[in-house]
Amino acid sequence: MNYTVAINVMPLKDLLDPQGKAVLGGLHNLGLKAVQDVRIGKRITLQVDAANESEAKKIAEEAATKLLANQVMEHFEISILS
Amino acid sequence: MNYTVAINVMPLKDLLDPQGKAVLGGLHNLGLKAVQDVRIGKRITLQVDAANESEAKKIAEEAATKLLANQVMEHFEISILS
Repeated sequence: MNYTVAINVMPLKDLLDPQGKAVLGGLHNLGLKAVQDVRIGKRITLQVDAANESEAKKIAEEAATKLLANQVMEHFEISILS
Repeated sequence: MNYTVAINVMPLKDLLDPQGKAVLGGLHNLGLKAVQDVRIGKRITLQVDAANESEAKKIAEEAATKLLANQVMEHFEISILS
């Protein structure tokens, strides 16, 4: 079966996120003062051919660990979309 | 109140995603042949000070429309995390 799996890769909480800080400044300049913090990461969706959901999740985890996320600076979470 | 709002910005379905194609090749080289397609977008989390969830969502929508997403090439979806 074909599964759509989403992987969210975000910078670790304790690390600075200069891109997020820049966007925060931009939002304030646009008048959106209610925004207090911004963090920017990646969202990757995979089409995975797998026997069942847990196998699809395992494949996505391998992809995230080996290629998509740098676990020194980022953490990831995986969810099955369909 | 303080809300955490996530914005997912993904390339439109009908557009090529060269970054995704490159990652797909990388995953195949790593032996992950079960992955058939990859699309790469951004995930942005905002800390928003708002009276209620719907106001927080509205602010995030304004941020996405004005700055974070290029709606010619990308679509976005917003969800309240907490």
